[in-house]
Amino acid sequence: MKATAQANSNIALVKYWGKRNSELILPYNSSISMTLEGLHTTTTVEYSEKYKSDSLIMNGTHLKAGPELEEVKKFMDLVREKTNVHLHAKIATENNFPTAAGLASSASGFAALTFAATKAAMRDLDFKELSILARQGSGSASRSFHGGLVEWKKGSREDGNDSFAEQLAPVSHWDNLRMIISIVSTKAKKVKSRAGMSQTVATSPLYKGWLDSVEKDLNDVRAAIKERNFSLLGATAEMNALKMHATMITTQPSIIYWQPASVAVMHEVHALREEGLEGYFTMDAGPQVKVLCLEKNAKHIEKHLAAIEGIEKTIVCRVGDKAKIINEDLF
Amino acid sequence: MKATAQANSNIALVKYWGKRNSELILPYNSSISMTLEGLHTTTTVEYSEKYKSDSLIMNGTHLKAGPELEEVKKFMDLVREKTNVHLHAKIATENNFPTAAGLASSASGFAALTFAATKAAMRDLDFKELSILARQGSGSASRSFHGGLVEWKKGSREDGNDSFAEQLAPVSHWDNLRMIISIVSTKAKKVKSRAGMSQTVATSPLYKGWLDSVEKDLNDVRAAIKERNFSLLGATAEMNALKMHATMITTQPSIIYWQPASVAVMHEVHALREEGLEGYFTMDAGPQVKVLCLEKNAKHIEKHLAAIEGIEKTIVCRVGDKAKIINEDLF
Repeated sequence: MKATAQANSNIALVKYWGKRNSELILPYNSSISMTLEGLHTTTTVEYSEKYKSDSLIMNGTHLKAGPELEEVKKFMDLVREKTNVHLHAKIATENNFPTAAGLASSASGFAALTFAATKAAMRDLDFKELSILARQGSGSASRSFHGGLVEWKKGSREDGNDSFAEQLAPVSHWDNLRMIISIVSTKAKKVKSRAGMSQTVATSPLYKGWLDSVEKDLNDVRAAIKERNFSLLGATAEMNALKMHATMITTQPSIIYWQPASVAVMHEVHALREEGLEGYFTMDAGPQVKVLCLEKNAKHIEKHLAAIEGIEKTIVCRVGDKAKIINEDLF
Repeated sequence: MKATAQANSNIALVKYWGKRNSELILPYNSSISMTLEGLHTTTTVEYSEKYKSDSLIMNGTHLKAGPELEEVKKFMDLVREKTNVHLHAKIATENNFPTAAGLASSASGFAALTFAATKAAMRDLDFKELSILARQGSGSASRSFHGGLVEWKKGSREDGNDSFAEQLAPVSHWDNLRMIISIVSTKAKKVKSRAGMSQTVATSPLYKGWLDSVEKDLNDVRAAIKERNFSLLGATAEMNALKMHATMITTQPSIIYWQPASVAVMHEVHALREEGLEGYFTMDAGPQVKVLCLEKNAKHIEKHLAAIEGIEKTIVCRVGDKAKIINEDLF
């Protein structure tokens, strides 16, 4: 019983930062993301009675211990409970981009794992069920099943069964939307988002101000998507990211994901915008800066970003497609 | 009637950001600063019946128009009202450090101007009266008369007569305290603090969270000064600055004073602290980073900061002395 799934990464335009329930991973606020073509995780799950425990091969390395393995084992217990297939699995997973550096590798990773692990267990879950399950591995993974533009609804139920992602618009709705990833450093980030999040909720005096302002951002981004209003989408996303980072830097102890090159990109985006090359940045729990723009400006903007000192690489991503099963061998 | 005054700059450890009355310059919160030896403004004011209007020579340049001249003329009207000397003045002012780049040149500038202009008018005001008057030129100037560690009490009166600075501790109380100025750029900043401040109050959803948290910072810094508790002083000052910058970056439009080298200094300070070289940064409305430390670590830390790319110059400052009249020629 073996299946391989592929899921694209996603980058939030309205961020998820803070959990009301950290066991079930239920967020304080809804979030909206763009699924990214080109940054994906491919994961194969194989169950067998001969396996005595779950094993994990990540980007070609067999992980014999450590937090990643523990997280995955714990998550596989949830999958076994859901599928009623009580076997251990061999899991092999590959990212085609740097892991754990603020490029949402846990989003595509847990989405692909959830899809492959349930399929290999011969359970055909729909995207709603997959989203609810993947969410419990990594919150942002709930958004990596649908293609296009996606909203993870926070929900209100205590069991979390109304906290899952839905598609706001398919890929075809806005096919000239682009996100330019500027890779600042491939080093793994120091503070994992999970730890950072709970510290922020507990200690930042600005967290409440952030949370109170998110509902308006969600409304603005929903409207911007509906009307394909790029300026509204970009301006709202950029300020939303700045607000999230404002809560991060005021966490005790302070979490500063910005690196010198990150700040250089931010200023360059502002300078280009003043010159009429309209782009808006967003940042997650890592030093990378992602710049939202339209196709007509993408190459120009990319060229400017690539010239900045400390930028190792730039990637222009289109709006990405939904997650899929790319191989299965169930008997 | 001519007098020359010299006032040191000061850097806030608990920041002033936001005015409840922008005409009288009354702040929403009290602030605490360290007066800096070595960064000063020297200002000569000469009244004469032959002058038809106020003239301003700033760092050797005769300013014939522009916002600086208008600000100074408006301020001289306040001085004339206060002193009852209704003459125009020739004002010559020199900073021994870069102007308008987040090194508090308006603090030392308006303090020196206030002191020289009242003295030349043959009025001997005490520091309380000078502080109240200078405050109406630039808020932070109210703190540049006293030496040592200084608190600008926000006051509650509508006329502002209880909003002035007092000394918390003299220079001798903590003579091994140091502040290392890392100069990132000598270019004038793009957003003047005055405009930035009112935009933040009006538009940052995080401003209230900042304001609600300042009272505790003030108490902690007062206690830290009293007990010479350097760790408490530094940690509180660093987080207070981060909170202020968090409100700045979330202002509409965003105000990002951080430059690549600023961020590099911040990370270096954190790295050095982990290695036992205890320093804490603070930043104002410009790209410069100021690092608070004790004398025993100052040279070591300075060496590390000076090696950072984009740092043009470092200056180690002691706690500075009070403002003084250095020349007078009243008849």
